[in-house]
Amino acid sequence: MSKKVSVGIAGASGYGGGELLRLLMGHPKVSVRRLSAESNAGERLSSLFPHLPDFGIFEKTSDVSSWNDLDILFTALPAGMSSRIVSTLPRPHPVVIDLGPDYRFSDPDDFRRVYRMDHGAPETLPMSSYGLVEWSRESIASSRYIGSPGCFPTGALLGILPFLKAGFLGKTPLIVDGKSGVSGAGRGLTIDTHFPEIAEGMKAYKPLLHRHVPEMEHAMKIVSGESVNVVFVPHLIPVNRGLISTIYLPLLSHVTAGMVTSLLLEYEKQNPFVRIVDSPPSSAHVRGTNRVDIHAAMGKELVVVMTAIDNLVKGAAGQAIQSMNLVIGEDETLGLPVWGYYP
Amino acid sequence: MSKKVSVGIAGASGYGGGELLRLLMGHPKVSVRRLSAESNAGERLSSLFPHLPDFGIFEKTSDVSSWNDLDILFTALPAGMSSRIVSTLPRPHPVVIDLGPDYRFSDPDDFRRVYRMDHGAPETLPMSSYGLVEWSRESIASSRYIGSPGCFPTGALLGILPFLKAGFLGKTPLIVDGKSGVSGAGRGLTIDTHFPEIAEGMKAYKPLLHRHVPEMEHAMKIVSGESVNVVFVPHLIPVNRGLISTIYLPLLSHVTAGMVTSLLLEYEKQNPFVRIVDSPPSSAHVRGTNRVDIHAAMGKELVVVMTAIDNLVKGAAGQAIQSMNLVIGEDETLGLPVWGYYP
Amino acid sequence: MSKKVSVGIAGASGYGGGELLRLLMGHPKVSVRRLSAESNAGERLSSLFPHLPDFGIFEKTSDVSSWNDLDILFTALPAGMSSRIVSTLPRPHPVVIDLGPDYRFSDPDDFRRVYRMDHGAPETLPMSSYGLVEWSRESIASSRYIGSPGCFPTGALLGILPFLKAGFLGKTPLIVDGKSGVSGAGRGLTIDTHFPEIAEGMKAYKPLLHRHVPEMEHAMKIVSGESVNVVFVPHLIPVNRGLISTIYLPLLSHVTAGMVTSLLLEYEKQNPFVRIVDSPPSSAHVRGTNRVDIHAAMGKELVVVMTAIDNLVKGAAGQAIQSMNLVIGEDETLGLPVWGYYP
Amino acid sequence: MSKKVSVGIAGASGYGGGELLRLLMGHPKVSVRRLSAESNAGERLSSLFPHLPDFGIFEKTSDVSSWNDLDILFTALPAGMSSRIVSTLPRPHPVVIDLGPDYRFSDPDDFRRVYRMDHGAPETLPMSSYGLVEWSRESIASSRYIGSPGCFPTGALLGILPFLKAGFLGKTPLIVDGKSGVSGAGRGLTIDTHFPEIAEGMKAYKPLLHRHVPEMEHAMKIVSGESVNVVFVPHLIPVNRGLISTIYLPLLSHVTAGMVTSLLLEYEKQNPFVRIVDSPPSSAHVRGTNRVDIHAAMGKELVVVMTAIDNLVKGAAGQAIQSMNLVIGEDETLGLPVWGYYP
Repeated sequence: MSKKVSVGIAGASGYGGGELLRLLMGHPKVSVRRLSAESNAGERLSSLFPHLPDFGIFEKTSDVSSWNDLDILFTALPAGMSSRIVSTLPRPHPVVIDLGPDYRFSDPDDFRRVYRMDHGAPETLPMSSYGLVEWSRESIASSRYIGSPGCFPTGALLGILPFLKAGFLGKTPLIVDGKSGVSGAGRGLTIDTHFPEIAEGMKAYKPLLHRHVPEMEHAMKIVSGESVNVVFVPHLIPVNRGLISTIYLPLLSHVTAGMVTSLLLEYEKQNPFVRIVDSPPSSAHVRGTNRVDIHAAMGKELVVVMTAIDNLVKGAAGQAIQSMNLVIGEDETLGLPVWGYYP
Repeated sequence: MSKKVSVGIAGASGYGGGELLRLLMGHPKVSVRRLSAESNAGERLSSLFPHLPDFGIFEKTSDVSSWNDLDILFTALPAGMSSRIVSTLPRPHPVVIDLGPDYRFSDPDDFRRVYRMDHGAPETLPMSSYGLVEWSRESIASSRYIGSPGCFPTGALLGILPFLKAGFLGKTPLIVDGKSGVSGAGRGLTIDTHFPEIAEGMKAYKPLLHRHVPEMEHAMKIVSGESVNVVFVPHLIPVNRGLISTIYLPLLSHVTAGMVTSLLLEYEKQNPFVRIVDSPPSSAHVRGTNRVDIHAAMGKELVVVMTAIDNLVKGAAGQAIQSMNLVIGEDETLGLPVWGYYP
Repeated sequence: MSKKVSVGIAGASGYGGGELLRLLMGHPKVSVRRLSAESNAGERLSSLFPHLPDFGIFEKTSDVSSWNDLDILFTALPAGMSSRIVSTLPRPHPVVIDLGPDYRFSDPDDFRRVYRMDHGAPETLPMSSYGLVEWSRESIASSRYIGSPGCFPTGALLGILPFLKAGFLGKTPLIVDGKSGVSGAGRGLTIDTHFPEIAEGMKAYKPLLHRHVPEMEHAMKIVSGESVNVVFVPHLIPVNRGLISTIYLPLLSHVTAGMVTSLLLEYEKQNPFVRIVDSPPSSAHVRGTNRVDIHAAMGKELVVVMTAIDNLVKGAAGQAIQSMNLVIGEDETLGLPVWGYYP
Repeated sequence: MSKKVSVGIAGASGYGGGELLRLLMGHPKVSVRRLSAESNAGERLSSLFPHLPDFGIFEKTSDVSSWNDLDILFTALPAGMSSRIVSTLPRPHPVVIDLGPDYRFSDPDDFRRVYRMDHGAPETLPMSSYGLVEWSRESIASSRYIGSPGCFPTGALLGILPFLKAGFLGKTPLIVDGKSGVSGAGRGLTIDTHFPEIAEGMKAYKPLLHRHVPEMEHAMKIVSGESVNVVFVPHLIPVNRGLISTIYLPLLSHVTAGMVTSLLLEYEKQNPFVRIVDSPPSSAHVRGTNRVDIHAAMGKELVVVMTAIDNLVKGAAGQAIQSMNLVIGEDETLGLPVWGYYP
């Protein structure tokens, strides 16, 4: 049996970090060596994650610069922090897979414009790749830095890109109406995520202004070469996990229902985590899995594409591990759940 | 003090009926005299509605034809049943306010096409009105039959009509992405509304095909004279009450943010249950009220209008009582809650 | 028509304060004149409570000492703060109805022992009363200071006291297993009330150690003269509102089912907000009301009493207004909902 | 590698069956060969369980009598049906592991008294065992029929039995206050499990009368030889999964906190799925796992034991597989999750 890869997680005390831990603990080729947290440094793992075994203590995120025993470093940190840490890592440093936004744009100016701060290691961007595995397997496999996509862009792009790439789309804008469970807002306390404020309610937030819009547009430019405008309104829904995207795509008039069906079935065939389903997918059916379930409904010169993912798995930790599998030369599905639990 | 109007409810054992009862019991000008149910006929009120006092027994819906002591009859019955009952009522019969679809179309052919059954009393349609009070006060006040709007059309139309009527809209289609709480699906048992199937999940249903689409298009035709196409995808969200609509409206290029703001503030001024709010409205903030909260976000030649209602109040029972108030010559707000409970 | 009483609320920005506002705004004999908050001083009402109209601005709680135009002052403040404010009020000062714990014990030493701080106005305690209306109407009506009960003691005592007072109870301890919705934990942000931490979960907290235990025991001593031990375990349940108490009471061997039924029916007859129901009460059926629903199941020398209240109404704001009604000489039910909304 | 055991599931279309499928599909020593359902016979697996792959079709439960290729047959059927099917199986027939109640009592008269029907195969009861693995490993390993415990008895007994067996308990009755998620009520449609009837509510049901009481008392008799009375009140809580039990145990006066701690730590050491935790366990922390988390709080001659399980795993499917592992000579933990997902 081959040697296991040595993995660390910087910023492991949030929900994305916890999900990384859960999945990596069960991954047959991985040994988790290092964990860091910010305000929770010094705490035991089981005190922050009572659903996990008590196998370690969180170091300080500022200590990451001394971690010299890793093959892979996952970073799940606020914008700008991952790239700042990267610039302090010992050389040659591990492959970095960032669950934050620092490696989602190839141009540091785009990052600055969207996040209103400087990128911490612009010299590393030429060696980076956007980690949407279904659409960039080769570049991910050979990258040193991977920008794992945001949860909303994941759900939206997985539904849009087949149509865009096939040249089926008519005049834009594309409209993406996203609905996310509350874990997508993170583990930090806010009034909007205080139970009585959101339970038994639902609402849109940041309509048209979410930072995931430029991320989506950038990814579409990379894949198709075209500049596409996205109209995006995210919503907060009182469930823990789950993200559904309802995507309204204008079609060129020659595109038939049969062409759409063929396109999607081929898409499913090429991608182990894509499943085409017969009715609008429920987020409950992909819970705990790295799958995306997709359904399309044809209208007049329009197709409505509905996608469902688990925001913490396919939308964060699982997708990052899917990238890691390519980096370490394994099958992209290794250690990742295709099937989930229900109810 | 003036005499109270005498009211009956046919089909009072569902959620719409229960909400009618709750609100009418507190209405200063109403005396509830009659209740009917189908499979629950013979039961006491408090056994079906443990949140209400034990003030009566459900008669059979087939007995309604002998109810000759009413000024107003509310009907909350499956499609086609209200109009069939109407044709059996003693003459002159009470004003009928239907929470079902029988009086939502003025042409019986439209009803037949959408609901795939004949209308039970086509001769009454000329005396009927669509009960969206904010847009048809005069005709409601003088009608004998009122078709109270469906919950999704209510949420959508209250957001679309000011823009349509003002001539602000560019090329259609309009896109309406609706999200409803589970009480909107009624009290009948279905696998989709079995708690473990929907809790912690969310999904679209009947994309593009919902019967509320022709209802919306018909109402827009009446108000504006124009034929407008609607693309509509409803979603089921695991909350009890609440319905939000995210409406993507193309604007003509000369329409400015200032014009939109003025339009909405005037709309609020004219309508006691309309409130324009500074951020996307939460369904939790209108719970238990007959209000609609509206927020608009401007994009490029596009405005996203977000509306929130309580599907059982403004989307059903409250709106029907608002119509009744006009019929009996009272202020439209009488007995209807403007402010709600939270959390 | 008689003049309205002038009312202020100190600490009005939490859930208890918001519910007081909602109910007092609809009370026919009340005019709300003053509101205060601590960190939210200076904010408009509608920014903190989007479900309420925009009728005022929060003053600072430290300004309360200059409020000289009130008949009634409600205080909804952390332990010790109400009595400290009371000592600064202008004389003669308004009747104080405290939703916090400062007036729940008649002896300042008890308060100090339980809350580990000194009482702010021990000289006022002889003029105070415990505000459990069903068991102390006379003393409340003539008190200047009323300690409105905690939510758990309300639910438990309303189930226990009839049996204790009737002399039906056998050897103690009594066991109270309480389950509360999350609004009972208040509006302050904590990790335990962060949506993803409590949704889809449930747990006990502070088993045997909750400060509501000495409050329950003190109230039982006042009503019955006897010292009774209570074993109490509260639980946090992922609903917004609602509190159910499952109370295990040992019975003396001569107590029959008939005696229990008679006792409870008499109890219902004497108390407008008590309803005896035929099956275990759901918290959903009392939501939004000032009612307590009670059901008893007989075992062998044991009765299990189940009570359901809305923790924010009967367990807090509604019950405080019920006391106020007695103080101002009105019927105790005035302005308080007996019937609620469902679902 | 050793040959896989061949497994069938009769009654696989409910939640227990679905969870069996999910877990057995990932079990390294199992091959699932057969599935049956009643009204859903003929359906594809993925149409009933959209979270699972499409690997088969449900046969009719009446066909089970011809299944002659199985080593193990799981039955998840209504009371009385499993034993009736057993009597029709080909001989020698597979080891039967019943998730229903047919093998929970060793005496057919007990079964008849509790379930008001005759046992279908009383001649098989001498070869049966109660499948609470932690307390009957040897008898399970050598049984041909295993009665897997009910969900509430599992949660209660795992908390009570260490104390009972150690001789720590004082005068009974024991009080068990149980709280279950809605999946525990099964997949059949009922008004009580219709989403709007239970969401945002909570209530007790069948107080003192639940069929799990005699099951608990029977199991305690088997383990300790003593007759112990249980007072049990179950509650329905609006979560999908999870079951917590709050158990009030009278202690003999000589039992100290230190003795309790030692007892529990030894218990944890002996049992791979038992975890002793420092604070009241949340059902969220054991979700998806076969673990039981236990916490004890000492009172005066009383200990409150709180246990948390996933009702569909440790309370049903997982526990049944734990028994199967003993039957096939494997480690009891094989294929069973110890750690779960959160949130």
